[in-house]
Amino acid sequence: MCCQKVAEAEAMVSGGIQDVFISNEVVAPSKITRMVALAAQGARVSVVVDALQPLEQLAVTAQQWGTSIDVLVEINAGQDRCGVDTPGQAARLAEHISRLSSQLNGSVNFKGIQAYHGGLQHVRDPQQRAAAVQRVVAKAAAAVDAINKKAGLKCQLVTGGGSGTYRLEAASGVFNEVQPGSFAFGDADYARNLQLGGQQGEWQQSLWVLTQVMSVSAARACAVVDAGLKAVSLDSGPPVLLETPNVAAGLVAPPPGSNSSSSCSSSGPSSSSSGNACGQLPAVSFEGVEFQNGGDEHGKLLWPQAIPQLPPQLPSLGTKLLLQPGHCDPTANMYDSIVAEREGTVVAVWPVAGRGPGL
Amino acid sequence: MCCQKVAEAEAMVSGGIQDVFISNEVVAPSKITRMVALAAQGARVSVVVDALQPLEQLAVTAQQWGTSIDVLVEINAGQDRCGVDTPGQAARLAEHISRLSSQLNGSVNFKGIQAYHGGLQHVRDPQQRAAAVQRVVAKAAAAVDAINKKAGLKCQLVTGGGSGTYRLEAASGVFNEVQPGSFAFGDADYARNLQLGGQQGEWQQSLWVLTQVMSVSAARACAVVDAGLKAVSLDSGPPVLLETPNVAAGLVAPPPGSNSSSSCSSSGPSSSSSGNACGQLPAVSFEGVEFQNGGDEHGKLLWPQAIPQLPPQLPSLGTKLLLQPGHCDPTANMYDSIVAEREGTVVAVWPVAGRGPGL
Repeated sequence: MCCQKVAEAEAMVSGGIQDVFISNEVVAPSKITRMVALAAQGARVSVVVDALQPLEQLAVTAQQWGTSIDVLVEINAGQDRCGVDTPGQAARLAEHISRLSSQLNGSVNFKGIQAYHGGLQHVRDPQQRAAAVQRVVAKAAAAVDAINKKAGLKCQLVTGGGSGTYRLEAASGVFNEVQPGSFAFGDADYARNLQLGGQQGEWQQSLWVLTQVMSVSAARACAVVDAGLKAVSLDSGPPVLLETPNVAAGLVAPPPGSNSSSSCSSSGPSSSSSGNACGQLPAVSFEGVEFQNGGDEHGKLLWPQAIPQLPPQLPSLGTKLLLQPGHCDPTANMYDSIVAEREGTVVAVWPVAGRGPGL
Repeated sequence: MCCQKVAEAEAMVSGGIQDVFISNEVVAPSKITRMVALAAQGARVSVVVDALQPLEQLAVTAQQWGTSIDVLVEINAGQDRCGVDTPGQAARLAEHISRLSSQLNGSVNFKGIQAYHGGLQHVRDPQQRAAAVQRVVAKAAAAVDAINKKAGLKCQLVTGGGSGTYRLEAASGVFNEVQPGSFAFGDADYARNLQLGGQQGEWQQSLWVLTQVMSVSAARACAVVDAGLKAVSLDSGPPVLLETPNVAAGLVAPPPGSNSSSSCSSSGPSSSSSGNACGQLPAVSFEGVEFQNGGDEHGKLLWPQAIPQLPPQLPSLGTKLLLQPGHCDPTANMYDSIVAEREGTVVAVWPVAGRGPGL
């Protein structure tokens, strides 16, 4: 299971996942110790490195704890974030891991490389995306080759790829592990990716933000919902409204395989007062409605006013709506728990363990 | 104490604040009941309304609980978010509050109006800001006048204004309460506001995000820090780096009244391994360094490469830095706690009660 932070790895291990891969550099000695402690407790732990100093700290700490960590060299796959910049640097770092392994009773094991490019996950056009991933594959292949020829080491693992590109890495012949994660939730940004043949997103959305209409202005053709910057991250564009408002009245999700069908329940918490229970719904159309940020606690839904003489039908106060967040990761990060629902029934409330900044 | 959500009001009351004003519409019956319960427990509770239905729900609920809520009519001050759109609507709503008060044993009391415009807090130029607030003041005055003439009611409170404009509302002769809050933390966006005479921000920054260098690339003149979208909200621009990196090594804040002085402590958690303890610091200049979003868990610090033959001195791995967030509210919202520090010593760890989306 891929994690980005030690706190996430700890949450995974305490939840029963016994094989965690921190696909990110860990440099703070206190975090390295916590990571090693997970391995000492019996979990299989792997991590990426791109520099000598934290690698040495890791090797010494793991030896002190009498345990072993699998280590992958991260290469800069073109995102210009973490990772070594040249195949030669990758080979030297791999060699160093191997040397430390010999010196320190296998406290670190060289496992392979990571080549991940987050930006490519969101390239809309499938041909352009494939061409860009080809450049990542070439970089990965060059690093594997240099590690083999210059350091005499074999990469057991070549890992990378995300929800937008993982099929390309998987088919490359160079990668043998992929790291998609966002597909489990989905978001409006991923949904804008096109597939070969022009069809949209291969995954159904599962994560929705439940929001409620708290103010309505007929004069401005505007309904204000209680979802602002503290409820949906706007970094990748605004959330997209699910066009079946009554779906939310009873916390009923659309049937799998469809995002335009509606279902209804009269047992919704707001149905007694908001008049939007099944059968009483006014004919609200959400076509062309624009979501605008209204601040930390507000979102504005603006109806198009095509015909000034005919004001649009607006949802009534208290109407509950479902928003597909623009970006699932930082949105989920704001919530202490996620309500899990199946066919109209809440089946679990999941705490969002490991949320928060990178601890 | 102003709150935007019932959950915040509950946190305030449980923390000992006995006078809370929810400066936002509350429409869900369950939230109205929770708000009334605060009043029934002895707190003084006030809230704004802009529609009949939640007002009536509030009045009936408060009567059932045998308590009383102060109610203000919110007017649309130009932000086109919540609030009634005309003075006539304000008067009718005020009259309705007054009538309900008579009918339901004073379970709601008409108190006045709120006229708040969030967007004006961030108008850079002081003359333009003053002119824009003047339009808000005119709207507030018109509503007060209509409420007096048409409904025969007096506005005891005229409330509004934020950290960017509160002096203007306070001096208007129309407002008698202001609502600044962000000044307590400050952020890079507020710091860009200019005051009359051209000087910058009247408040010192108190809220910083502590981050650590986790990857360095000399070839790209780039240092990657572990603060991404899960650590700093980027909606109002990137965070600004405090230009005294050693300040953070020992969690030591700059002296009050200065944001360019440095202080140093060798007891910092990273000083033993990162080589950036006092006296060993390389001469890193942060002048012209650009913060770029690097994803959910990363920020990229890009050094200007003015002289290609002379690569810039980069901070070493593990260096801790302080970031002034672009927007304090959604940034604080991501943290479970805030570490309070005075002159190099941690004096408290404050839980961020009431954080999260608008519950």
